[in-house]
Amino acid sequence: MSKIPLALLALVASAALCAAAAGPIVTHYTLVNGLELVVIPDHRAAVVTHMIWYKVGAADETPGKSGLAHFLEHLMFKGTARNPGGRFSETVGTIGGQNAFTTSDYTGYFQRVPRDRLKEMMAFEADRITGLVLTDAVVRPELNVVLEEQNMRVANNPNGRLAEQMDAALYLNHPYGRPVIGWRPEIERLDRDDALAFYRRFYTPNNAVVVVAGDVDPAEVKADAEETYGKVGPRTEIEPRRRPQEPPQEAPRTVTLADARVEQPSVNRYYLVPSRTTAKIGESQALEVLAHILGSGVNSRLYRALVVEQNVALNAGAYYSGTALDYGKFGVYGAPKLGKTLHDVEAAIDAVLADISEHGVTADELDSAKNRLIADAVYAQDNQVTLARWYGAALATGETVDMVRDWPEEIRAVTADAVLDAARTWLNLGASVTGYLVNSLHSQEKHS
Amino acid sequence: MSKIPLALLALVASAALCAAAAGPIVTHYTLVNGLELVVIPDHRAAVVTHMIWYKVGAADETPGKSGLAHFLEHLMFKGTARNPGGRFSETVGTIGGQNAFTTSDYTGYFQRVPRDRLKEMMAFEADRITGLVLTDAVVRPELNVVLEEQNMRVANNPNGRLAEQMDAALYLNHPYGRPVIGWRPEIERLDRDDALAFYRRFYTPNNAVVVVAGDVDPAEVKADAEETYGKVGPRTEIEPRRRPQEPPQEAPRTVTLADARVEQPSVNRYYLVPSRTTAKIGESQALEVLAHILGSGVNSRLYRALVVEQNVALNAGAYYSGTALDYGKFGVYGAPKLGKTLHDVEAAIDAVLADISEHGVTADELDSAKNRLIADAVYAQDNQVTLARWYGAALATGETVDMVRDWPEEIRAVTADAVLDAARTWLNLGASVTGYLVNSLHSQEKHS
Repeated sequence: MSKIPLALLALVASAALCAAAAGPIVTHYTLVNGLELVVIPDHRAAVVTHMIWYKVGAADETPGKSGLAHFLEHLMFKGTARNPGGRFSETVGTIGGQNAFTTSDYTGYFQRVPRDRLKEMMAFEADRITGLVLTDAVVRPELNVVLEEQNMRVANNPNGRLAEQMDAALYLNHPYGRPVIGWRPEIERLDRDDALAFYRRFYTPNNAVVVVAGDVDPAEVKADAEETYGKVGPRTEIEPRRRPQEPPQEAPRTVTLADARVEQPSVNRYYLVPSRTTAKIGESQALEVLAHILGSGVNSRLYRALVVEQNVALNAGAYYSGTALDYGKFGVYGAPKLGKTLHDVEAAIDAVLADISEHGVTADELDSAKNRLIADAVYAQDNQVTLARWYGAALATGETVDMVRDWPEEIRAVTADAVLDAARTWLNLGASVTGYLVNSLHSQEKHS
Repeated sequence: MSKIPLALLALVASAALCAAAAGPIVTHYTLVNGLELVVIPDHRAAVVTHMIWYKVGAADETPGKSGLAHFLEHLMFKGTARNPGGRFSETVGTIGGQNAFTTSDYTGYFQRVPRDRLKEMMAFEADRITGLVLTDAVVRPELNVVLEEQNMRVANNPNGRLAEQMDAALYLNHPYGRPVIGWRPEIERLDRDDALAFYRRFYTPNNAVVVVAGDVDPAEVKADAEETYGKVGPRTEIEPRRRPQEPPQEAPRTVTLADARVEQPSVNRYYLVPSRTTAKIGESQALEVLAHILGSGVNSRLYRALVVEQNVALNAGAYYSGTALDYGKFGVYGAPKLGKTLHDVEAAIDAVLADISEHGVTADELDSAKNRLIADAVYAQDNQVTLARWYGAALATGETVDMVRDWPEEIRAVTADAVLDAARTWLNLGASVTGYLVNSLHSQEKHS
């Protein structure tokens, strides 16, 4: 974070608040077949972002079939009877760009194309909601691609390995403990039948949200959507997404991951907290402000205490991940300087957390954090893809268009008392896991 | 364990080996409807033990419905159309005794009655395989009974709470991480429909093993079984029991449970190891011998080192739990003396484990452990219920009658090299969770 003079920041924030209050006029339709359509006007360029979000992710997988949601995301590019092989991808490749992503809660696909190609994109996506054709000849090689991805992201990445283990320890019962990419031995056994069964169960217009952001007229987009998406009949009923929930969490856990490739040890802690969808009114906004004050940037409490004042850490911070159907995550972390131990860093983090839970935050900290968060929300609106993803992710995890729209105002309403309450309620070791990333289990001794 | 002079122990053990080799002639039938029948002759008294084991337990529950296998065990005593209300229990109560139990892998029911009442017991049990009648009027009060049991065993029992948390941390993916009694918030929501759906899916003669031990003739027992159990048609096909398996485990975990009722802190560690069913030949026997040498009784290495020589612990030991379909568990534990910390005890345990993994065991230790284990197996045969449970649990977790019969001989065949291999392979911190039971999280500081 660059240092912006306070006066300028306040100015930006005021503008931000107005822009947020005015904001884009977002239109939300539901087609007859159950498909939701969100249109976000953005007339700065003749470009559109077209996204389809399926309300299915790794947490909806059958136990023992982890990785299936993500594997299917890969297989969705293998073609249909109407658009065989790579025709869809090749078309997008010549006129724009595309991407796809899977989380525990949703699977999304998007294209950035010239405005006049939007309906064509809709036709392609509508076709593959139910028209996917899979043969073993395409499924098996793609499984190797996914296994390579697992190598890169997890197996050969100590931070990825630790995060996987920490999630498994954080969730005692909920499927968020399952890695989105899957447990490797289970990925290895996924096959065409698994993928097709999952596809038929979850890919249907009544389980999808289409987001269109760009130089468009909502009524025209709706007409185009009815002519493309509207022609796809729902092929199955979708059950309410009721995952096994966490029992009360009361015992602090630790996980120690030793990997010879680790050059910089670190300590990371996850607290189980509410998501935007499950939080009481104002609670997730207070967590957002708390995370910002504690650990966003060089003026945050953790950075100042550990890096600047005590000189024990190279880096330190905090964050709140709130976009999820069932649970949010509050993270704190730090990396020791040479000669300092993980124990030194953890003790320093704990002292900062204890202080904020006892004394709360100052009026200056509160204003500064709120201004910055609201400004960030406005900057996010400046990026068409970011804005579209914000709405898509929100709707795919149980939020409403209004909740996204009102978010800056709700941040503005956060009080110092609410932040103090959030710290006291949610910085609870009993509902946490602390992860130690070390070079060898021998070096672990240093922190115990 | 009382101290038995070595010479006497050797004598007992020799007798044991002969008895084991001769052993009871166990007969194993499978009826036309798929029900398995095991008959174990024991002619010392005109008494029989009659058990029915269903191959279903907590690990077979649908995620989110934890506690269902155990709840159904309670509900199985609520009567059928033919034997309404408590008629079965009342009948048993006047002539003998009964009990029932649920684990992750199986649910069992048994009666001890005079020999001439065996067929009557069979008729009662056959009737409730498919004839259970449940009304909300009986289901709801029984749920409160189960919740009280959860209070007693877990909520109000710090050791039970820690064990629940440690299991959740030991298993990253496998449903053995789920408590058999269930997560309390999920138990609270179980209802009649859940119980009946589970019952219809898993209670069928082709998913049951009947064990009869006592003063009986196998052919007569089979004839009685055909006239009672044989009349119950299979009501569903049973799928292979393929639970989600563990990914490679590589990161040591800890769990700290603080409870104001804790007067004696302790450290407990679980290692994930093979079960008798999943182990390679000789491996689970080597683990059994290793556990005995490490931590069974006052002559074991852990007890001698921690309690007698170093004077850091009040108690210390080790055990191997091997009867399970998918995974076994190897446990070590210790409780510090006043003035010593959990860290002292854990360091002392780790030193004992490091030593045995480096240098192995002595010939004397090996012989003594094997003799004792074989003698124990013979003593077990002396108790009709223990013997019947041994066969029932084995058959319900994928073992065979031959595997039970040959177990003493396989213990006899364990070598010092096999024990050393077992220690080196399986005392692996990466596949372990260490639990700390403390009075308060403040007191936890003492060990970190």
